[in-house]
Amino acid sequence: MSYCLAILTNAGLVLASDSRTNAGLDQANIACKLYPLVLPGERSFILLTSGGLSLSQSVLTLLKSDFASGIGLASADSMYDAARCVGDAVRAVANRDREFLERDKISFNVNFIIGGQITGERPELYMIYPQGNPLQATADCPFLQIGETKYGKPILDRAVRYESTSLEQATKLALISLDSTMRSNLTVGPPVDLAVYPADSFQLPQMLRLQADDPQLVQIRTQWEMELRAASQRLPAIRFET
Amino acid sequence: MSYCLAILTNAGLVLASDSRTNAGLDQANIACKLYPLVLPGERSFILLTSGGLSLSQSVLTLLKSDFASGIGLASADSMYDAARCVGDAVRAVANRDREFLERDKISFNVNFIIGGQITGERPELYMIYPQGNPLQATADCPFLQIGETKYGKPILDRAVRYESTSLEQATKLALISLDSTMRSNLTVGPPVDLAVYPADSFQLPQMLRLQADDPQLVQIRTQWEMELRAASQRLPAIRFET
Repeated sequence: MSYCLAILTNAGLVLASDSRTNAGLDQANIACKLYPLVLPGERSFILLTSGGLSLSQSVLTLLKSDFASGIGLASADSMYDAARCVGDAVRAVANRDREFLERDKISFNVNFIIGGQITGERPELYMIYPQGNPLQATADCPFLQIGETKYGKPILDRAVRYESTSLEQATKLALISLDSTMRSNLTVGPPVDLAVYPADSFQLPQMLRLQADDPQLVQIRTQWEMELRAASQRLPAIRFET
Repeated sequence: MSYCLAILTNAGLVLASDSRTNAGLDQANIACKLYPLVLPGERSFILLTSGGLSLSQSVLTLLKSDFASGIGLASADSMYDAARCVGDAVRAVANRDREFLERDKISFNVNFIIGGQITGERPELYMIYPQGNPLQATADCPFLQIGETKYGKPILDRAVRYESTSLEQATKLALISLDSTMRSNLTVGPPVDLAVYPADSFQLPQMLRLQADDPQLVQIRTQWEMELRAASQRLPAIRFET
């Protein structure tokens, strides 16, 4: 399993992923699931992916190859078109592989998130389903998740606001969400990849890889657990009327 | 969908459930999923259930009928035997209904939790699978969940400790876990049923039903959201080395 999430705020984008590809006992491999694609000064994209690694690699190979040739994501007129480029690449891989998977009862399962900005637009964020259709994050629902999404959703529901959440704060919330998921589910695991894209920068995002024992990740984990316990103790005791 | 959870600590048991039975748009019915069965001074049980309502009702009808006749849960020699009584009732209903469900592609899905205490033993807590086999909560893993379990797991993983968590504190944590799930998933809904069994009381547990607008539930929800935001703001900012 994987867990990837992306937060869109007025200030830009924060994207994060775990790196576990297979939680079988003898093959807990690590793979990066976060990829930037940038034409400095003009457009900046970050992709996240979950699902079959063979499938996501094929989609990324297509997208990168087109990008290097100046087509696809390199020439999309809008973020909506960029999301459609990802969907087209997913469908191209489906055309090639889907029937061969399905005849062995393996489902065609690959999910993408693309966040970024093209000159003349605000930053935008989309999820692309295995069917290739896009879903856009909005001010009302300013985050998207793929993979093992449930454990890390409550903190995002409660704390992420499009207008008021800073990138610094969104980065901490993304890490809390990921760390909560890793704590509660063994199939999601470190290292954690992080990317922060400030609106209108049109550059490579700030990126960081945090290993399991990284002092910053350990600090977040330890302090968050302490804060949760203290916060729950400050809640009023429940009264049972007799 | 449903969400039920139970916490076992050195001080006793806390059990809680939502009450939504069907989140279809035109039939969001309410049903109690928490049932006490008590022989005062001798034994006290609390049952929680998720899954098909028709199935859980049949299992409960069997268990209550036996209990009233002084057999089954009324005469089980130990909490382990009590958990086995629940499993036997699940299997009896499976014998009667399972093939008729399966020929229409409906799976036999019903889950139970039983917590309680029989004179001469410490309080114990078990989950019973649809196959009828029991799983016991332990000091290392002192809570059990059935239904839509993922949203509400991180807070329990981080804050529940068998030796040190008081019943008052466990009650608050159970409500936080349930409220987080209701906030993030529309198929889990109020009212919330709560039961608290202090070890060695051998009486009906303290019980409480909280409607969606109950001041105690609103207070927990509001204050918890405020606390989470404040706590996340106190975490150190992530540093991105260049």
